[in-house]
Amino acid sequence: MSAESAEQHPAHAPGVPVVSVIGDGQLARMMQTAAIELGQSLRLLAGARDASAAQVVADCVLGDYTDIDDLRRAATGAQAVTFDHEHVPTEHLHQLIAEGVNVQPGPEALVHAQDKLVMRKKLREIGAPVPPFAAIASVEDACAFWEAVGGKVCLKACRGGYDGHGVWFPHSEEELAELVGTLLEKGTPLMGEQKVALTRELSAMVARRPSGEVRAWPVVESVQSDGICAEAVAPAPGLSQELARRAQDLAVRIAKELGVTGVLAVELFEYLDEAGQPAISVNELAMRPHNTGHWTQDGCVTSQFEQHLRAVTDRPLGSTATLAPVTVMTNVLGGAEDPAMPMSERMSEVWRRFPEAKIHLYGKTHRPGRKIGHVNLCGDDVATTREQARLAADFLVHARWADDDENE
Amino acid sequence: MSAESAEQHPAHAPGVPVVSVIGDGQLARMMQTAAIELGQSLRLLAGARDASAAQVVADCVLGDYTDIDDLRRAATGAQAVTFDHEHVPTEHLHQLIAEGVNVQPGPEALVHAQDKLVMRKKLREIGAPVPPFAAIASVEDACAFWEAVGGKVCLKACRGGYDGHGVWFPHSEEELAELVGTLLEKGTPLMGEQKVALTRELSAMVARRPSGEVRAWPVVESVQSDGICAEAVAPAPGLSQELARRAQDLAVRIAKELGVTGVLAVELFEYLDEAGQPAISVNELAMRPHNTGHWTQDGCVTSQFEQHLRAVTDRPLGSTATLAPVTVMTNVLGGAEDPAMPMSERMSEVWRRFPEAKIHLYGKTHRPGRKIGHVNLCGDDVATTREQARLAADFLVHARWADDDENE
Ligand SMILES: Nc1ncnc2c1ncn2[C@@H]1O[C@H](COP(=O)(O)OP(=O)(O)OP(=O)(O)O)[C@@H](O)[C@H]1O
Ligand SMILES: Nc1ncnc2c1ncn2[C@@H]1O[C@H](COP(=O)(O)OP(=O)(O)OP(=O)(O)O)[C@@H](O)[C@H]1O
Repeated sequence: MSAESAEQHPAHAPGVPVVSVIGDGQLARMMQTAAIELGQSLRLLAGARDASAAQVVADCVLGDYTDIDDLRRAATGAQAVTFDHEHVPTEHLHQLIAEGVNVQPGPEALVHAQDKLVMRKKLREIGAPVPPFAAIASVEDACAFWEAVGGKVCLKACRGGYDGHGVWFPHSEEELAELVGTLLEKGTPLMGEQKVALTRELSAMVARRPSGEVRAWPVVESVQSDGICAEAVAPAPGLSQELARRAQDLAVRIAKELGVTGVLAVELFEYLDEAGQPAISVNELAMRPHNTGHWTQDGCVTSQFEQHLRAVTDRPLGSTATLAPVTVMTNVLGGAEDPAMPMSERMSEVWRRFPEAKIHLYGKTHRPGRKIGHVNLCGDDVATTREQARLAADFLVHARWADDDENE
Repeated sequence: MSAESAEQHPAHAPGVPVVSVIGDGQLARMMQTAAIELGQSLRLLAGARDASAAQVVADCVLGDYTDIDDLRRAATGAQAVTFDHEHVPTEHLHQLIAEGVNVQPGPEALVHAQDKLVMRKKLREIGAPVPPFAAIASVEDACAFWEAVGGKVCLKACRGGYDGHGVWFPHSEEELAELVGTLLEKGTPLMGEQKVALTRELSAMVARRPSGEVRAWPVVESVQSDGICAEAVAPAPGLSQELARRAQDLAVRIAKELGVTGVLAVELFEYLDEAGQPAISVNELAMRPHNTGHWTQDGCVTSQFEQHLRAVTDRPLGSTATLAPVTVMTNVLGGAEDPAMPMSERMSEVWRRFPEAKIHLYGKTHRPGRKIGHVNLCGDDVATTREQARLAADFLVHARWADDDENE
């Protein structure tokens, strides 16, 4: 479609900053929601006209985010370029910057969300807590690491993993050696990390502007299932004020030290230290709105999507105050089969039972395990809110109530 | 642009209901925001590709809402057709319905939002409180009405008025006679209404589905300035529970009796009755999201825009519970002049001072008096929240702080 400069496209009101988003998934889609209310409209680099975000954006450039010419076309006339994923080659971003494009976050920051090993080295350098790790360039490296951590090994692809793809837990040194041999042969750069006896996972999210302002959201508990975020509870139940503060401070520090702009999600492990006290270490960074921040759409004064747009255009950040004692976000992941009941009817059933449930869908068709939406629910207590949000999301997937006796 | 059926347009995910909105203003724009999060995308009948709503909708049919062919093109393949204004000729809607189109609200209901006289006759018939009124087909009718209400006359054009255009308060019988003579000559159908000694204006909003479910929002106080809504405070401060209940019940009854679907706004006068007690009477009906309902975007579990879409597609309605003790909405109306400071910088100034302020802009360029956006602010007490929302909106208009001594 459009290859003209953003200034010429009727989607953009005169005098309003145009933000180009590289990517066409649900994160870009939800950025568009926020943009609209701010009086903007996004420009998109999309792979297909019917992609999640492309459905709802009038100024849609079709192209490939690994192609410098396509990136250039999408950037033309935009006040800032940002992302809904971290897979754009950093050399292209350096090139765009050399040509005068305002890329937020920039490649020096973004590389830490692209490469798990680079990230860990940097975090260790700035004194941020990470589990023991090592680069693995050979089967020997792998075996040495196995010994070093007493067999508690988590093997990770340094690049390209997502939703748990690219993470392995070998049960024996032999299994590790075989796995590493195969993966290295395929050209997958690897690292080993000590397997943490985690008590739960947390997420500390902040937003930062190029000119320095940072704001943090409350730390949330994130429940992972098969490597995919299944649920987020905000604020994290039972988290001590002291540890919450430590997690927020850590995220703020990482944002500053790495020069992150826009939204930064710091995925954390909570575990018990040698003294039996709860402690945290960093697992993963994301430099964009993040699944564990979807709850902010309905549970917070400023959603992560609005905040991201404000941050990447270097405008003052919004309040991160909560609107309810607890907000639960539950993902809607495509089930093994797609029930015959149309999604629209499933929504009706959920709304009939839970008029407070906020359903967010991404305009995606069914595929097993695919993220097709989420449910946000605000409430007064964790147990009830969690139960209801789970029931709601579960109904959207399976078209039946998980607590219905007849299902058992 | 597109004249194809909605089913073919890539903006619409398979299996998702397509809603066509006739109109391209800010109400359609904000419906699109809601639609996106529900996994839909609107189809639009717009007058121009750069209109407020057209900027943010990929499936945009260009045309004229008074042209039956254009309406037909916009309706093709849509599960429901609805409106962002009430100016579509009802004969066209009857025609579309005859052709199988699902029009919500239907013309039998909509006519009461188009014609002030038809509306008042109907309300009188169902026993809803309206000030004394009469049709005015001649200067004699006008003088007779002047006598009947002791000179307390508000003259109204039956059709086509908005934002106070089409409403006159003549100071003498002569002025009335002259005005009526001129207007009748121009072919303006007229009615007279007793001028109410109103204490303030209220708005009672509800949503209703074709299958009958109705939900009411809290009644708000609406402050008008020169016939334009300037501010809404939710819930209406100092309104007795009893009167609030009466206003809600009235709106529910009107929705049912008139067969309204989607959102209905009942604009009300509050005045003191003969016993000196607060009482209400109806001023105006709107059958679509309404300016006095913008606060629901940030102050309510379900916004009027989401509720409207749910209602016109006959899906269960959402909770209308509030998220804060008070929410204030203040309109941003183009000032006499447009300040040199770009709007984007004005937003930054407002956000710097009020990180809780929710700014909503419509992608419209400046014109004196034009509605270009609004600010929502949630808070704990009316006075502070009102003051801050006013300061914020005022800054967006004038690029200066109204409470800054240097301005005085
Ligand atoms: N060192 C570790 N110790 C224990 N469990 C781990 C470790 N590293 C990862 N995991 C588990 O594996 C899951 C996926 O790991 P990770 O987050 O690194 O993968 P990813 O594919 O990058 O995921 P995401 O898409 O969430 O970023 C984690 O959520 C956690 O449950
Ligand atoms: N009978 C009346 N007595 C006193 N004031 C009135 C009366 N009718 C209208 N007004 C005043 O005039 C304003 C505009 O009137 P009205 O709402 O009928 O006009 P409108 O153009 O249809 O406005 P809107 O666009 O808000 O529907 C009202 O908000 C009220 O302040």
